[in-house]
Amino acid sequence: MDSYADDSRPPRAVLFDAYGTLFDVSSVLVTAEALFPGRGERLTELWREKQLEYSRLVSMSGRYQPFSALTLAALRWSAERLGLALSEAAERGLMTQYQALTPFPENLSVLGELKSRGVRCGVLSNGDPEMLAAVVARAGFNGLLEPLISVQQAQRYKTDPAAYKLGVDALALPAREILFVSSNCWDAIGATWFGYTTLWVNRANAPVERLDVTPHHLGNSLRSVLDCLAPPD
Amino acid sequence: MDSYADDSRPPRAVLFDAYGTLFDVSSVLVTAEALFPGRGERLTELWREKQLEYSRLVSMSGRYQPFSALTLAALRWSAERLGLALSEAAERGLMTQYQALTPFPENLSVLGELKSRGVRCGVLSNGDPEMLAAVVARAGFNGLLEPLISVQQAQRYKTDPAAYKLGVDALALPAREILFVSSNCWDAIGATWFGYTTLWVNRANAPVERLDVTPHHLGNSLRSVLDCLAPPD
Repeated sequence: MDSYADDSRPPRAVLFDAYGTLFDVSSVLVTAEALFPGRGERLTELWREKQLEYSRLVSMSGRYQPFSALTLAALRWSAERLGLALSEAAERGLMTQYQALTPFPENLSVLGELKSRGVRCGVLSNGDPEMLAAVVARAGFNGLLEPLISVQQAQRYKTDPAAYKLGVDALALPAREILFVSSNCWDAIGATWFGYTTLWVNRANAPVERLDVTPHHLGNSLRSVLDCLAPPD
Repeated sequence: MDSYADDSRPPRAVLFDAYGTLFDVSSVLVTAEALFPGRGERLTELWREKQLEYSRLVSMSGRYQPFSALTLAALRWSAERLGLALSEAAERGLMTQYQALTPFPENLSVLGELKSRGVRCGVLSNGDPEMLAAVVARAGFNGLLEPLISVQQAQRYKTDPAAYKLGVDALALPAREILFVSSNCWDAIGATWFGYTTLWVNRANAPVERLDVTPHHLGNSLRSVLDCLAPPD
């Protein structure tokens, strides 16, 4: 873990990214592999990349579409690209699975510990409000994460500053007093550009993105969040 | 080829995307494969994807960096991701190759035909002005393409409308009277959103991106441009 280079107070609240950070997007892999043996991994990977690409393109162009619509469009494109015949049932199965992504194993205890310390924890995600509510409820995290902030209000996807601003507005704290946590390095960097204190949970042991800043803190599981906050009283 | 659905005049000028459209970005593959036998294709692919991703992230966040800098950063990230040791010489070799990309074989005759018809042809590219000047000169296209418009002036990358607006301003024509040509479907769609008449040269036989519009025309080589314009007098 890195520690603070400046004299600011440690963060008093936490905002989590959802997809990839709290919830394992690769948990659709089991369904994908059952549907398309030997091709599930490539389909899942392509699907995720295309979903992010679409979110960026519509956002840059001022042509917002809901994340669920982009997710479905990305699935269809990816299946077509791989030459896989995607039946209605298969499509429904994969999209349903996306509402029921598996949380990472350490999350519940970390969120419980943060609650017991009185640290406010919310979500700031590209996902639509309904998608977020469903996946959080399904994981049993109700009562542990509030608010659930969707970028839909801003009609811009991360890394647009309008998306990150929603978190600051909702928590009514300066950005640097909020710890923004993401397993997506690009997201942690976008939040750093915006002004948040940031933690990149590098679950996949990926190289850091070579942009002009790096996240303030690095960790390898959600437990690293606990080290970025003031110690409990 | 599709044809016009509306009553507007056929385009009177053409703007070409550069990378992938006039110049074959996969022509760095030979150099990459010589440096890293068996890994050149994956490196080239990842490099291109990361270069585009970086362009979108910095643009969305209002943190413009030159395309050459992003291209180098993307190369370094991709090599690290694949566990390839990138020497200074290898890095220089690959970056130099990027200034000398091979044009597609039909380009010269198509550009010559357009010139003989009196159709103004320019470039509107994410590349820096110096990169564009170098690759155009190297291909022997001087005198055939003017203006060479870099998004650098707007400090935003495609698909931001500020980037596409540069073409309209430079040619002093309404967007729909300009044929915007790209082999990148996302770019042709971005230009369609902006208001250009568009041609997607689908060289790789890729599925169309599933966004809410499609390019006006489809083709499979630069020759398709000739079919999108008014016939010669």
